[in-house]
Amino acid sequence: MKNTRRKFFKTIGLATATSIIGGLYPRQVSASKKVKWKMVTSWPKNFPGLGAGAETLANYINQLSGGSLTVKVFGAGELVPPLGVFDYVSSGGAEMGHSGAYYWKGKTAAAQFFSSVPFGMTAQEMNSWLYYGEGLKLWEEVYKDFDLVPRPAGNTGVQMGGWFNKEINSTDDLNGLKMRIPGLGGEVLARAGGTPFTLAGSEIFTSLQTGVIDATEWVGPYNDRAFGLHKAAQYYYYPGWHEPGPTLECIINRQAYNKLSKQLQKIIDIACKAANIDMLSDYMAKNYQALEYFEKEKVAMRQFPREVLVKLNKISDEVLLDLSHENKISKKVYDSYTNFLKRVRPWTLISEDGYLSSLK
Amino acid sequence: MKNTRRKFFKTIGLATATSIIGGLYPRQVSASKKVKWKMVTSWPKNFPGLGAGAETLANYINQLSGGSLTVKVFGAGELVPPLGVFDYVSSGGAEMGHSGAYYWKGKTAAAQFFSSVPFGMTAQEMNSWLYYGEGLKLWEEVYKDFDLVPRPAGNTGVQMGGWFNKEINSTDDLNGLKMRIPGLGGEVLARAGGTPFTLAGSEIFTSLQTGVIDATEWVGPYNDRAFGLHKAAQYYYYPGWHEPGPTLECIINRQAYNKLSKQLQKIIDIACKAANIDMLSDYMAKNYQALEYFEKEKVAMRQFPREVLVKLNKISDEVLLDLSHENKISKKVYDSYTNFLKRVRPWTLISEDGYLSSLK
Repeated sequence: MKNTRRKFFKTIGLATATSIIGGLYPRQVSASKKVKWKMVTSWPKNFPGLGAGAETLANYINQLSGGSLTVKVFGAGELVPPLGVFDYVSSGGAEMGHSGAYYWKGKTAAAQFFSSVPFGMTAQEMNSWLYYGEGLKLWEEVYKDFDLVPRPAGNTGVQMGGWFNKEINSTDDLNGLKMRIPGLGGEVLARAGGTPFTLAGSEIFTSLQTGVIDATEWVGPYNDRAFGLHKAAQYYYYPGWHEPGPTLECIINRQAYNKLSKQLQKIIDIACKAANIDMLSDYMAKNYQALEYFEKEKVAMRQFPREVLVKLNKISDEVLLDLSHENKISKKVYDSYTNFLKRVRPWTLISEDGYLSSLK
Repeated sequence: MKNTRRKFFKTIGLATATSIIGGLYPRQVSASKKVKWKMVTSWPKNFPGLGAGAETLANYINQLSGGSLTVKVFGAGELVPPLGVFDYVSSGGAEMGHSGAYYWKGKTAAAQFFSSVPFGMTAQEMNSWLYYGEGLKLWEEVYKDFDLVPRPAGNTGVQMGGWFNKEINSTDDLNGLKMRIPGLGGEVLARAGGTPFTLAGSEIFTSLQTGVIDATEWVGPYNDRAFGLHKAAQYYYYPGWHEPGPTLECIINRQAYNKLSKQLQKIIDIACKAANIDMLSDYMAKNYQALEYFEKEKVAMRQFPREVLVKLNKISDEVLLDLSHENKISKKVYDSYTNFLKRVRPWTLISEDGYLSSLK
């Protein structure tokens, strides 16, 4: 229907067409060629931080285009389940999706580098790699086979290590640790002697409370508070070594993207960039407030001992190296990612960390 | 002329008008009401990082608007001198400017909080205060009297402490130190016993080489390398305690802004947000490369001793408190800024710094 209309305009010329339709003002001219898109997401509708970020992105696109491209956001499960986003957008069921690239490791192992990997880059490092290194170009290459155009569209910042009912004083305490920690972080824990669980968000609280698991990671103070996890665990550990700055993604069906005017394509690209900084700013503001709440509730904060982090870091390096052997593109992305991280980190330690730790 | 044309369209209806002009496609309709703006900047044309950021912002606006609002960038001195930007945009000489708010302390003391203050917020903290705290609202209030609309539009990240020909081993070494360090940082140095100089960029190298000054701050590795400062100094100190994440500003003449459609206003707002994250990503990538160059050149890196930073921090607190006494709005901004920083910093230390320093 939309295509027919577009061809019709192209053939007879828009001014004539609008005369026929009778719209005499520019608003109506553009109204007559309004494009309506669907955005499916991996988050419950209006989920704090992540879901809000999807809404923000849709709003930006609507506002920037003056309504000529409107995007309607669907929460997880409304059109497809949380992990059905990739396939659905790939097949064109929806034109757009909002999710995290590490969910698609089963499709392509390399995807994980575009969200977060254990002991990987922080938000600022990721953005630098994506926008001014090879990151986004490689991401586009990886997703091309799936007819998807990826764009960075948010970041949670460094997450928390998680909620524990056992203290972690040495690497021995990782032995037999039953922890909800999916993905690469889980793989690292397994090699360190623990037992990783993959549980949906809805199952975490009860599993922790009943002792099915000893520990769980989730996101950070803001999201963790909403889940009430402090009521089911004794210790709140940091840092979130397994997710030091996950990038959230906007994925766009390639055919849908290609059909847009250059201007609308740019509107999506730049809206994603603005949504990227916006989500991190939101998380910063909400996380510190939730942290204050936890302090008032006398939640016991704990820092992982250095010995534990050193061991987890060593194992992480091995896990990422294995990942690089999965296929050619995975190796290519691994090389670019690890090289950039190795080179950018000395500057991060001198600038951000040099400043933040200067008075400690 | 532009106004006359706009009124003309309003009166007779756009479709009729375009028929008269003879443009039959929407591109031509919008072409016929093209708005052309000037952006004056405080940076030499295409100056690395800062000037590039102004160009990026202009490009975003041009692209987002499909050319209906085009912004032409002028380097410092082309239309007005670097520090003439504020007045020129305020008076409507140019519709838009790109600069740093701390340059306008003579106009309104509170302005300094919107770029960077000694021992103040990092880039991520600033963005959180500006977008999700009271920051941007207060900034708008402060600039309202000058007919300016401010928008955050870039960030350099944590800068460097500067180039020194004397080692700083204790607070005693600050006594009599002749250092090029303008603004609040200079005020702090003066109270610590040093002699701050305010020199234009072009005078720095020779002054340092000939011993007129013992030390200078500039920006960070990327910009410092372009100036060749490593050829005139022995030590490169970090962290840049006096500028831990300066926000760059886009200022818009209020009347010009108000004349725009809601859509074009949003295009400017969101383009600035995207330009904000883009500049920091650019600086990260270029700074680490320049740092590698300095390493190859065997530049001696030095970290300020903790004792020195503690003293400078204490003096900075006093300087900011004095600033808050300048007038009512300065007090209001000071209260909001210091309160946000006090509350957000514990989270920054647990997340960003908790992660970055975990393996040191």
